[in-house]
Amino acid sequence: MTIRQDAPSDDLDLLHRYWMAANYLTVAQIYLRDNVLLRRPLTEPDIKPRLLGHWGTSPGLSLVYVHLNRLIRRTGASIVFIAGPGHGGPAVVANTYLEGTYSQLYPDVTRDEAGLRRLARQFSTPGGIPSHSGVETPGSINEGGELGYSLAHATGAAMDNPDLIVACVVGDGEAETGPLSGSWDAPSFLDPTRDGAVLPILHLNGYKISGPTVLGRRSDDEVLALLHTHGWDPEVVAGDDPMQVHQDLADTLGRVHTAITRIRRDARESGATDRPRWPAIVLRTPKGWTGPDIVDGLEVEGTFRAHQVPIADVPDNREHLRMLEHWMQSYRPEEQFDQQGRLQPELAALAPSGDARMGASPHANGGRVLHPLALPTPEVYAVHVPAPGAVHHETTRPLGEFLRDVYTANPDNFRLFCPDETNSNRLGAVFEVTERCFVGSLIPGDDHVGHHGRVMEVLSEHLCQGWLEGYLLTGRHGLFATYEAFAMVSASMTIQHTKWLERARSLSWRDPVASLNILLTSTCWRNDHNGFSHQGPGLIDTVLSLSGDVTRVYLPPDANSLLIVAEEALASRDRVNLLVVDKQSHPQYLTLEQARDHFAAGASVWEWAGSESSDASGVREPDIVLACVGDVPTEETLAAAALLRGHVPDLRVRVVNVVDLMSMAPPGAHPHGRPHEDFTGLFTDDVDVVVAWHGYARAFHQLLHGRPAPDRFHVRGYTEQGSTTTPFDMVVLNHMSRYHLAIEALRRCRRAPDGAADLVGYCERMLQRHHNYVREHLEDMPEVRNWIWPEPV
Amino acid sequence: MTIRQDAPSDDLDLLHRYWMAANYLTVAQIYLRDNVLLRRPLTEPDIKPRLLGHWGTSPGLSLVYVHLNRLIRRTGASIVFIAGPGHGGPAVVANTYLEGTYSQLYPDVTRDEAGLRRLARQFSTPGGIPSHSGVETPGSINEGGELGYSLAHATGAAMDNPDLIVACVVGDGEAETGPLSGSWDAPSFLDPTRDGAVLPILHLNGYKISGPTVLGRRSDDEVLALLHTHGWDPEVVAGDDPMQVHQDLADTLGRVHTAITRIRRDARESGATDRPRWPAIVLRTPKGWTGPDIVDGLEVEGTFRAHQVPIADVPDNREHLRMLEHWMQSYRPEEQFDQQGRLQPELAALAPSGDARMGASPHANGGRVLHPLALPTPEVYAVHVPAPGAVHHETTRPLGEFLRDVYTANPDNFRLFCPDETNSNRLGAVFEVTERCFVGSLIPGDDHVGHHGRVMEVLSEHLCQGWLEGYLLTGRHGLFATYEAFAMVSASMTIQHTKWLERARSLSWRDPVASLNILLTSTCWRNDHNGFSHQGPGLIDTVLSLSGDVTRVYLPPDANSLLIVAEEALASRDRVNLLVVDKQSHPQYLTLEQARDHFAAGASVWEWAGSESSDASGVREPDIVLACVGDVPTEETLAAAALLRGHVPDLRVRVVNVVDLMSMAPPGAHPHGRPHEDFTGLFTDDVDVVVAWHGYARAFHQLLHGRPAPDRFHVRGYTEQGSTTTPFDMVVLNHMSRYHLAIEALRRCRRAPDGAADLVGYCERMLQRHHNYVREHLEDMPEVRNWIWPEPV
Repeated sequence: MTIRQDAPSDDLDLLHRYWMAANYLTVAQIYLRDNVLLRRPLTEPDIKPRLLGHWGTSPGLSLVYVHLNRLIRRTGASIVFIAGPGHGGPAVVANTYLEGTYSQLYPDVTRDEAGLRRLARQFSTPGGIPSHSGVETPGSINEGGELGYSLAHATGAAMDNPDLIVACVVGDGEAETGPLSGSWDAPSFLDPTRDGAVLPILHLNGYKISGPTVLGRRSDDEVLALLHTHGWDPEVVAGDDPMQVHQDLADTLGRVHTAITRIRRDARESGATDRPRWPAIVLRTPKGWTGPDIVDGLEVEGTFRAHQVPIADVPDNREHLRMLEHWMQSYRPEEQFDQQGRLQPELAALAPSGDARMGASPHANGGRVLHPLALPTPEVYAVHVPAPGAVHHETTRPLGEFLRDVYTANPDNFRLFCPDETNSNRLGAVFEVTERCFVGSLIPGDDHVGHHGRVMEVLSEHLCQGWLEGYLLTGRHGLFATYEAFAMVSASMTIQHTKWLERARSLSWRDPVASLNILLTSTCWRNDHNGFSHQGPGLIDTVLSLSGDVTRVYLPPDANSLLIVAEEALASRDRVNLLVVDKQSHPQYLTLEQARDHFAAGASVWEWAGSESSDASGVREPDIVLACVGDVPTEETLAAAALLRGHVPDLRVRVVNVVDLMSMAPPGAHPHGRPHEDFTGLFTDDVDVVVAWHGYARAFHQLLHGRPAPDRFHVRGYTEQGSTTTPFDMVVLNHMSRYHLAIEALRRCRRAPDGAADLVGYCERMLQRHHNYVREHLEDMPEVRNWIWPEPV
Repeated sequence: MTIRQDAPSDDLDLLHRYWMAANYLTVAQIYLRDNVLLRRPLTEPDIKPRLLGHWGTSPGLSLVYVHLNRLIRRTGASIVFIAGPGHGGPAVVANTYLEGTYSQLYPDVTRDEAGLRRLARQFSTPGGIPSHSGVETPGSINEGGELGYSLAHATGAAMDNPDLIVACVVGDGEAETGPLSGSWDAPSFLDPTRDGAVLPILHLNGYKISGPTVLGRRSDDEVLALLHTHGWDPEVVAGDDPMQVHQDLADTLGRVHTAITRIRRDARESGATDRPRWPAIVLRTPKGWTGPDIVDGLEVEGTFRAHQVPIADVPDNREHLRMLEHWMQSYRPEEQFDQQGRLQPELAALAPSGDARMGASPHANGGRVLHPLALPTPEVYAVHVPAPGAVHHETTRPLGEFLRDVYTANPDNFRLFCPDETNSNRLGAVFEVTERCFVGSLIPGDDHVGHHGRVMEVLSEHLCQGWLEGYLLTGRHGLFATYEAFAMVSASMTIQHTKWLERARSLSWRDPVASLNILLTSTCWRNDHNGFSHQGPGLIDTVLSLSGDVTRVYLPPDANSLLIVAEEALASRDRVNLLVVDKQSHPQYLTLEQARDHFAAGASVWEWAGSESSDASGVREPDIVLACVGDVPTEETLAAAALLRGHVPDLRVRVVNVVDLMSMAPPGAHPHGRPHEDFTGLFTDDVDVVVAWHGYARAFHQLLHGRPAPDRFHVRGYTEQGSTTTPFDMVVLNHMSRYHLAIEALRRCRRAPDGAADLVGYCERMLQRHHNYVREHLEDMPEVRNWIWPEPV
C-alpha cells in the first residue's frame, strides 16, 4: 500500500468515501458482532444482543475529523481534536482506527477483517470499551460522559502551545450547560503571541435526547451574533447534501487556517496588540445524518429519535434487520475496504501520518511532552522559626514567593489559576514576575494586568479548573488556588478528573502527567468575616471516597510545611492533591528541616508540646493523646496541651500532628496508610485520642475504620456552625476550642489527676466569659486584637 | 409623618436624596460604631475596630433599588429584588431599613437614632449580621456569598407568577461564572401567558476584587449584542453624573414597564405566540460611585480599590478619618434624616408601602404564599405485589404516574425539573398532561414540546436546580430528577440551599417553604451501559455532613416504597430530601401498606427473608445480620440470604432493610436517628452485620459512630470500580454480589454451621464462572438475558 505522503489529495470525492467508511464503522460498532464487512446477508446472530451507543452526533464528529485530516495534510498544521459531544465515542474510535493510531495503541485491534470484528465487538460491551470518547480513546483529553468542559479543556490545551490548533466540537446540548456557556469567553484569555488557537465548531443538530436544543432553534444570525459578541469570527456551514457540505466545510477550514496564520503573524511579527477575532465554525447538519429516514413510520434522521440507536429490536424484527443492512450497504463497504478488510490505499492516503494524526498527537498524551518543573529549593523561602510558636506568619505568603520563582524558572509550562483571589490568598509575589492575563482593552490604573500575563484569573471555578485540566493533560504544570468552600463549585470536575487519572494509570500508552493541585485556602475556620456561606470543607469528603491511587489530602500546619507539601505536589504525577491551609497570620512551628521530616512521616509526635515521661525501660504510655490536623486545629490543640501541662502537670499528654491525612487510613485502604505498628506508635492501641480536625468530624471517623479501637477517637471538627463572628468564636461554636479540647481530654483520660477539676472549672469559666463577650459584643465593640484570639496561655 | 401614599412623587431630586440616604447608611454600616448621624466630628472611638464589607457594588444596588421603588409607586407593579452581587449586603439592608421593612422584622433596629446606631453596629460583626445579602435580609431569595445563581433564581421565581416582575441585578464579576452565563437563555423557558417577567440589570462597574471583568471591558454594542442574541431587548444606561443617570434610568424603567405590559397583553389577550423579547438593562456606573476619588495618592472610585473598604486604617490615620467624615457629609445626613434620626417624610414617602415594598414582598418569603400541594393518594399507583420479589417493575414508573396527577391537581404551583431525561428516567407519564417547556420555534415532529409546557428540561443541572430553588423560595413545589452522578454538578448549590434553610429555620419571620427534593436515579449500579463517568453516589456523602435539621436521605427498595417516600418528601417543609433509586426493572417486595410501615420505621427486619428461630421466651438472637440499603444492594442481600437459607439451614440469618438512611445515625447526631433500643432491636448490640450499601462504604461507616460496637458492621458499597459492563459485574467488581455477601456472612458469624464450607465453595465457583464469562465475553457475546443477572437462587 503506497500512501502519497507528499501529495495531499484534493479530491473531496475521496474524502466523502473516507467519511462513509467512518460512518460505516460507527454503525458496525453499535450493531455488529460478526459479518462486519457484510460479506453475506445480515442475520440475527450477526447482531449484538444489547444495542448501545449514540449515533446522532457521530456523523458530525466524523465529518469534522476527516476535514481536519485534510487540513493537516494540506498545511502541516498541528491539531488536537476534542469531542464535546463525547457520547459519539464510536465515531472518534472509528477515525482513530482508520488513521492507524488505534491499532498501534491496541494491537489486538488489527487493520484487517479480524481487527474490524474486534473493533465492532468491543464497543460498549463487557470486557470492551466504553461508549463515550474518553481516556481510552486515542487523542482524547476530554471525558465525554459528563458534559460541559470541552471548550475549557481546549482553552487550557492551547495555552503556551503557540503552534497548536485545538479543534473543539461543541454539541448544542452541551452548549446549554453553565460551564460551556462560560467558556465562550476564551478569546479574552488567549494571547496570540504565545498561545495556540482554539477552534470551536459548534455543531447544531437540533435535539438533545428528546427535546429541542436552545441554540439549535436559533437563527443563524442569532448564533453568529452570540459567538461574535464573545470575540470570535464565526462562519456558518450548513446543509444536508454531503458534497455541498464537504465543499463548504473545506473552503471554510481553508479560510480558518489562513486567518489563524494571519493572527499569529500579526501578533508575533507585526506586533499587533488588539485582541484578535479567532475564527469559529457553526456547523448545522441533521442529527443522525446519513442514517435511516423513517423507522416504523416515524421520522428518524434529523430528529431526536436518531440520538442513540436509531433502529431498535434488530435481532427480533426482520424488517429492521433488512433496514439496518440497507443502511450499512449505503456506505458501500466493499468499495472502502479491500478484501482483507483494510481501508483502500487511496483513502488511507488521506490521513496524516505519525504524530500528525490527531489520535497520535503527543499533546493529547501529555506525558509524552512533559518536562519536569524546575523547582527552586524551598529553603530560600523558609520562615525562620527559632522555637515552635515563637513567630506568626501568613502561611501562604512564602508559597507565593516560591511560586514566583517557579514562574521564572519555567517560563512556558507553569501557570497559576485562581478566581481573582491571588492577592487575597497572599500569593501576590507572583506579580513581581508576571501579570494577570487579560486580552482586551487595558486602562491606566489596572494592577498587573496584561495580554502576556500568565496568572489566570477568572471568576469561575469551572473555568479555572477546566483550563488547568486541559493544560495538565497536554503535558504542563499548574496550581488551582481557591476559597475552600467554593472548591465545591467544581467538585464534579474533580471527581471526573480523578476517574480519568485512575483509568489512565491502567493504560500503558498514556504517560503520566503532572498532578491536579488544588490549594484550598480561606478556609472555614477563618471565614469569620464572610460568614456561613463561605464555610465549607466538603471537598475533602468528596475526595476521600475516590480512588486512593490518585487522591492525596495534605493539611500543612504552617508555612514551612506548606512549602514542603507544595514541592512534593508539584513534582508528583497522576494525582489529585488537595492542599488545605489558611492564608491568615498563624503561629509557625517547624523549621524547614523539621517540616520535611514531618511530611515524610505523614504524622508525628510533637514531643515539645506534650508531657510524657518515660520510665527506665524507655516505654512510654500517655494518659491521653491530643491529635491535630490543620492549622487552626493545631493552634487550639497546642493551647489545650499548654493548659493541661500548666494545670495538671501530673497528666501524661501526647500531641500528634497529622500533615498527610491519608496516613490515618489503614494500609489496605490507601497507599499512604501507615503500617499498624507506626499507627499504634503514635496513638497506642487503646489510649483515648481527642482529635481536633479541620473538616467535618465524620470524614475523619470514616478514615479510622479498620484501625484498633477506633471508637476511642473523639473527633471535633466543623459542624456547620458559624456566621460573621470572630475566629475564636468559630472554634467555640464548633466545640473545638482549646477549652473544649482540654475538658474532653480530662473526661477521656483514664485517671483523675490532681488539678483536673480545677482546670475543667477554669475552662468552663473561660467559655462563659467568651459567650458573654459575644452576647455583649454589639454593645462593647472591643478592640480588634481581642477579637481574634484569647491571650496566649 | 405623613406619607403621600396616593401621590407618587415624580421628583428625581427627592429620589436622589433618598439614594444619598441609602449610600450614607451603607457607609455607616461599614465604618461606624457610634455618632451615626455625625452630630459631632468623627473620632477614633466612633469607628469600628474591624472594617468589613463591600462598598464597590453598593451604590449601584441602591440606585436600582430606589428606582424600582419609584416604578412600584407609579405603576403598582409587584417586584421582587435579587442582588446578584450579594456582597453588597449593606446596600440592600439600608434600603429595606429605609422602606421600613427591616424594623418590622427586626424590632431592635428601630426607625430612629438608636436604631441607626444598632443598624451600623450590627453589620458584619459578632452577634450581628453577615456582610452579604442573604437569608437574614428582608426580601432576599438569593444568598449573596457564592456567586452565579441570581438569574436562575430569578427565572424560577417568575415561573407561574404571571403578575410578578423579578428584578435581578447581575454583577459583571458574577457574569463570568458558568451558571450565570448559562442563565441568560431564560427567555426560551418563560411563557408570557403564564409566567412573570425577569428583568436582568447587568451592572458593569468594570472590576472584580483586583482584575478587570470580561463584560466590563466590552463595548456597549458587544454587551447589547450578547443579551440580544439570548433573546432580550436590552438598553444601556451609563454615566457618572447622578442626575443624568437618574433621568436615564427612570426613563428606561418606564419603557421597561410599558414593554412588559405590552408583552403580557399580547400574549394573554391578543394570543401572540412568538417568543417575546423581554426588556433588560445594561447599567454602567463607576465602582464605588460617590465614594472617595483618591486615597493616599491612588485612584479609588471607578477602580478595583473601591471593591471592599475604600479607606482603610481609619482609626489609626487622622487624615483617613477626616476623609471618611468628608465623604459621609457629602450625603448631607442632616438633610435626609430628622432630629430623631428618622428619614425625612418627603423621602419616606418615596417608598412603597406594605407588601408592595420589595423587602416585604410575600413572594420573597415564600412560606407566606405557600399552598400545600394537593397530593393524590399513592394507592392508585401502587404496584401489586402478591409476594416479595414475585414481580419485577421499573421502580420509577409509578412515580411518573403519581407526578402526572400531581400536575393535574396543582396546575399552577408544581413543576418537574430535569436535564432532558424525564422519559429516560421513566417519568414520561407526565407528558400525558403537560409538555416540555420551550418558548421558541417549534417544528413538526417535536415530542411533547410547547410554550405552555410545565416540564422544565434543560441540559444543565445548575439551571434545573437554580430554577427550582427560585420556584420553591417563592412558595411553590417541585422535584429535580437527575442522573445520580451528575447531581454532583450542582452539589455546591445543594450545600448553599441547605445552609439557607438551616438559617431560615432560626428566623421567626421566614415561613417554612416546600423542600428541595432531588431524585437521584440512573444510579451507579445500573450505569453499566454508560460506564465509569456515570457512576458516582457522592452527593450522599456531601449531604451527610450538612445540618441534620435539614437533610434527609431515602433509599426506597422498590416502587411502592418510592411512592411513600415521594409523598412524604413533597409534603415536607424546609428540607433537602435525596431520593435515591434506580429506574430500571427491579424485583418488588412490599405492598403499599407494608411500604408505609417500613417508611415510618425507617428500617425494619424483613422476617420473610431471614431464618431466625425464636425460643420459648420469645427471645431471638441471630447468628448474623444482613443489612441492605438501596435497590440493588437489597436484591443482592436477598439472594445471599436465600443462598444461606438453602445451603446452611442451621444458620439464623436476619435481614434488615433500611429506607431512611438517617435512621442509622445516633439520635443526637440526626433527628431521624433511631433510639438505641430500636437500633439494637434491629441489629442486636454485638452480632456482626454485613451491610450491602448503595453508596461509598465509608459514608455508611461514618453514620454508625456512636452506635454500639460499630466495628461489627462490615460494609460493602461502591468502591469506584466499574466500566461498561453488566449489572451483575458491577456488584462483583465492587465486592457486593450475593456471593461476596454470603461468604462474608459465613466468615463473620460466630459459629461454623453445617454446610458453610460447601456454600463458600459454591460461591467461589460462581464468582469464578462469572470472571470467566466476562473475560470471554467479547468472544461469546451470549444473549442479553444472561448479561443482566444470574439465575434466581
